[in-house]
Amino acid sequence: MRISEQIFPRVVALVVTISKENKPNVMTASFLMPVSFEPKFIAFAISPQRYSFKNLQEVGEFTVNICKSEMKEQAIICGSLSGKDKNKFELAKLEVENSKKVKPPVVKNSPISFECKVEFMKEFGDHFLIVGRVVEEHIREKEFKPLLHKSGSSYLLL
Amino acid sequence: MRISEQIFPRVVALVVTISKENKPNVMTASFLMPVSFEPKFIAFAISPQRYSFKNLQEVGEFTVNICKSEMKEQAIICGSLSGKDKNKFELAKLEVENSKKVKPPVVKNSPISFECKVEFMKEFGDHFLIVGRVVEEHIREKEFKPLLHKSGSSYLLL
Repeated sequence: MRISEQIFPRVVALVVTISKENKPNVMTASFLMPVSFEPKFIAFAISPQRYSFKNLQEVGEFTVNICKSEMKEQAIICGSLSGKDKNKFELAKLEVENSKKVKPPVVKNSPISFECKVEFMKEFGDHFLIVGRVVEEHIREKEFKPLLHKSGSSYLLL
Repeated sequence: MRISEQIFPRVVALVVTISKENKPNVMTASFLMPVSFEPKFIAFAISPQRYSFKNLQEVGEFTVNICKSEMKEQAIICGSLSGKDKNKFELAKLEVENSKKVKPPVVKNSPISFECKVEFMKEFGDHFLIVGRVVEEHIREKEFKPLLHKSGSSYLLL
């Protein structure tokens, strides 16, 4: 039984990173959790095979953009294609805006976005654990229905 | 806005630890996520003020016991009282059984339990991040309705 089918459902977020040449990329993440209330810290896990991983190593900044229920198609696109050869922002029709304190942009479609600086990264098994310090947040909607993930293409709602 | 109200809902688990005098304790955790598929790793965050924290430092082992919807009262009891002066296993009417590979017991009421060895712990803000390597798992039910947490006493279901 896959661990994603054992510990579920999980909040879905679009994680935006940027290369040292200033090319942003976006990926879907659901191995993600809050770590600390004050100051805010967020942890997520990423496979080192993901194109975004290199960005995190090069530019230690990312944004976490929470998905609401309406963003299921965008989560699927950003979770199943690689940014290596596609512009997922265009394919998923994501609107971005400049962050205030980090280089990667935030996603305007999201109800809540966090700007984060990488505080820590370490390999555990087939993923790297990334811990980010939240340096800015964007609250566009306080009431929203979160998109949730189980495994593969199985998404759930409350 | 508290981070627990921004990144929600979250899976609820009972985390069981044990002191070096072999006294087990149980706490409710919802800052928790899978990190790796193969081998399996799980991360969770714990306040160093929790009674269980000392156990983790003394005996680097714990079990993660997933809560199903029927376990809401047990999650509340184990999340709101301290094991320092109460036996939460009795108060919450939890049935435990010996683990196979670690000292803290597993909770039989849970659909799925993981036996874990602490691989890593580090402070971030007001919590410590704990990463455990799963060394054994107990699958009692494959179909269950997970109990979910938002903030405070606000629990949710799918």
